[in-house]
Amino acid sequence: MNIAESKLSDTKSYVVKLGIQAREAARDIAKASTAQKNKALLAIAGEIEASRELIKQANQLDLDAGAAKNLEPALMDRLELTDSQLDTMLEGLRQVAGLADPIGEITDLKYRPSGIQVGRMRVPLGVIGIIYESRPNVTCEAASLCLKSGNAAILRGGSEALHCNQAIAKCVEAGLQASGLNKHTIQVVDRIDREVVGHLITLPEYVDVIVPRGGKGLIARISRDSKVPVIKHLDGNCHLYIDDHADLEKAVSVAVNAKTSRYGTCCTLESLLVAQSVAKEFLLALAPHYSEHGVEIRGCAKTCELLPQAVPATQEDWDAEYLAPIISIKVVDGLDEAIDHINRHSSGHTESIMTKDFNHAQRFLREIDSSSVMVNTSTRFADGFEYGLGAEIGISTDKLHARGPVGLEGLTSQKYVVLGDGHIRQ
Amino acid sequence: MNIAESKLSDTKSYVVKLGIQAREAARDIAKASTAQKNKALLAIAGEIEASRELIKQANQLDLDAGAAKNLEPALMDRLELTDSQLDTMLEGLRQVAGLADPIGEITDLKYRPSGIQVGRMRVPLGVIGIIYESRPNVTCEAASLCLKSGNAAILRGGSEALHCNQAIAKCVEAGLQASGLNKHTIQVVDRIDREVVGHLITLPEYVDVIVPRGGKGLIARISRDSKVPVIKHLDGNCHLYIDDHADLEKAVSVAVNAKTSRYGTCCTLESLLVAQSVAKEFLLALAPHYSEHGVEIRGCAKTCELLPQAVPATQEDWDAEYLAPIISIKVVDGLDEAIDHINRHSSGHTESIMTKDFNHAQRFLREIDSSSVMVNTSTRFADGFEYGLGAEIGISTDKLHARGPVGLEGLTSQKYVVLGDGHIRQ
Repeated sequence: MNIAESKLSDTKSYVVKLGIQAREAARDIAKASTAQKNKALLAIAGEIEASRELIKQANQLDLDAGAAKNLEPALMDRLELTDSQLDTMLEGLRQVAGLADPIGEITDLKYRPSGIQVGRMRVPLGVIGIIYESRPNVTCEAASLCLKSGNAAILRGGSEALHCNQAIAKCVEAGLQASGLNKHTIQVVDRIDREVVGHLITLPEYVDVIVPRGGKGLIARISRDSKVPVIKHLDGNCHLYIDDHADLEKAVSVAVNAKTSRYGTCCTLESLLVAQSVAKEFLLALAPHYSEHGVEIRGCAKTCELLPQAVPATQEDWDAEYLAPIISIKVVDGLDEAIDHINRHSSGHTESIMTKDFNHAQRFLREIDSSSVMVNTSTRFADGFEYGLGAEIGISTDKLHARGPVGLEGLTSQKYVVLGDGHIRQ
Repeated sequence: MNIAESKLSDTKSYVVKLGIQAREAARDIAKASTAQKNKALLAIAGEIEASRELIKQANQLDLDAGAAKNLEPALMDRLELTDSQLDTMLEGLRQVAGLADPIGEITDLKYRPSGIQVGRMRVPLGVIGIIYESRPNVTCEAASLCLKSGNAAILRGGSEALHCNQAIAKCVEAGLQASGLNKHTIQVVDRIDREVVGHLITLPEYVDVIVPRGGKGLIARISRDSKVPVIKHLDGNCHLYIDDHADLEKAVSVAVNAKTSRYGTCCTLESLLVAQSVAKEFLLALAPHYSEHGVEIRGCAKTCELLPQAVPATQEDWDAEYLAPIISIKVVDGLDEAIDHINRHSSGHTESIMTKDFNHAQRFLREIDSSSVMVNTSTRFADGFEYGLGAEIGISTDKLHARGPVGLEGLTSQKYVVLGDGHIRQ
């Protein structure tokens, strides 16, 4: 066995050990009471509060190492854990403790003609693997959601945040133990070798679902190589279509909000479609707002005719997620072309129509194949908190299992429960 | 390019062609009205009725070819399409036409504090790939369920049933066209080369989910190699636990029904656990019934002590799905050992407890990690029709997406719908 092989098998046995511990912890946490889980969440908050200085010192070690390695400013920014972010973490733990427990809920319990009662009980998925990049607050957030939903978790954060993640992990472990729960319920990977991820996503016997959080490159790689189901979205190429029958004043307000309220979120508007009958009036009203915010317009030929400041869009622009003050604009014949264009170019995240026409709204809702479809609202509402999920572990643009913002329910499944009194099948 | 390569790329381009046609048809069928879909189902029934003799002649060709190849009797049996099975197919089509349309249903539409309304709309998955073995009636059954749930489907039946499947496929195509639907909504593969399956399960751009139906070997192979999510179960190693507090008369009746009413189904009882305090009374009452049915008992040491006809069980017996008149029996200390044994050895299909104790029933329901968990009923009830799903495309023992018997709802997903009146996010 050469050195590379011995290292690999060592890493694999490390991940397998985590997996075995997680499986055992998953059995325990699945039957933990709501009170026990809430107690643990509050105990973890208490530990973090008490270890505030230690966590900040650990974060400083990561920041120093990052500075020495000349990390990009954006990365350094995400790496820093400020006092206000620590407060948000504590508030998040308390909020998750306050959410209703999804586990054990029985729905649709009905008598069947045979005399048996059939219903469904909500149960945990088992072991969740979370793979994320530099932001250390994800450690705490992901831990709390997995715990509340009765799952065990293996968390693998970015190597840049190792010290800080480990400091938070100690608090999580202490909180679990103080509440009498299995300390392996939440395990934070303490090795930085990249092979850990490779093993984590190829051991379905120990991990039931992977939630990757981070850049598109990371997520695409994990989806491609994973042998475990992945809850994810890749892009947020979100569209807003201004229909012939739109209230143009509201349409301008929504188009401005959806594009400019934040540039970097996955529900930010990236492509605007306008029905030709209202294109001139609408675009001339909108353009000054975008100019004011410094938003670059990449338009189709008609758009460029109407707006001298627009630059011609290329074919790639219709598929682009800019995450920047840039927007593509296309004038379309009407609803049919809009639906067709969106279903062709959208990433399936979030699309919205501005219209006063009832049938157009109905058709848009039915025919657009995206995880969130909206009428007369800003795409920026596509968010677990805004939807009332109470929390969000991610957004899924896939169709199987979870679609759209994923909260506690997305980390659960339903089994059938059947009740009888000695019933036999004829 | 050598001959093997040229054949492979030819097969791949054939599957890609089916995939492109299916994607296009999926867009059309997703927006088809309930009336249109029901009309097509009844039109297909009409075509099959009119083509009864042609279908039977095609089936005879398959049977002759099977006989010439010396197919096993069990396989020949499954291959034969009798008049009564044709009647069942027709009845099935009419029943599916009568089921409620799951597509477009909006649930949980609620106002949020921001003023927007958020709910979920049920939508098709897209393109379903069904891979099945000899039984030609699956062609019609799978076609009807995919059609009703607004999905396009690519059906790949066993090569032994090619003539019969093609005859049924013609009726399906004619029924679709007569109702003005895209004829590619349901495509039946007309090539027998095995590579078709390999391509079908590795083209996620054209196929959204694979449902394999057939032997364990087929399903295991597909699950291992598929790049597309698979809805499946492998084994049905179902347990019945007779608790200390069971009504023993009902327990005997259920144990007999669960094992002997049919030996070959996936919800047939395969392993019986008995609390030691009632083991003697229960097993002595049960054993004569099993003897009468010729059921072989493979028991733990205590069982063998109590029942002279029992043979000692090996370690493998606790994990076995016999699908035959054989049962494994183990005497356990009580509920804890029963739950532990089941969660260790079960295949996650269906488990039942016989008990009069409320807390034992509650714990069993909560702590057993299987797709169906039952109290005081026969495991044989684990079936889409018995559960009121109206139809069943398969049973899933996985946790993501669908779990337990899978009906129309399992072929759908939910997207978020958001309604407003020019709302913007603060």
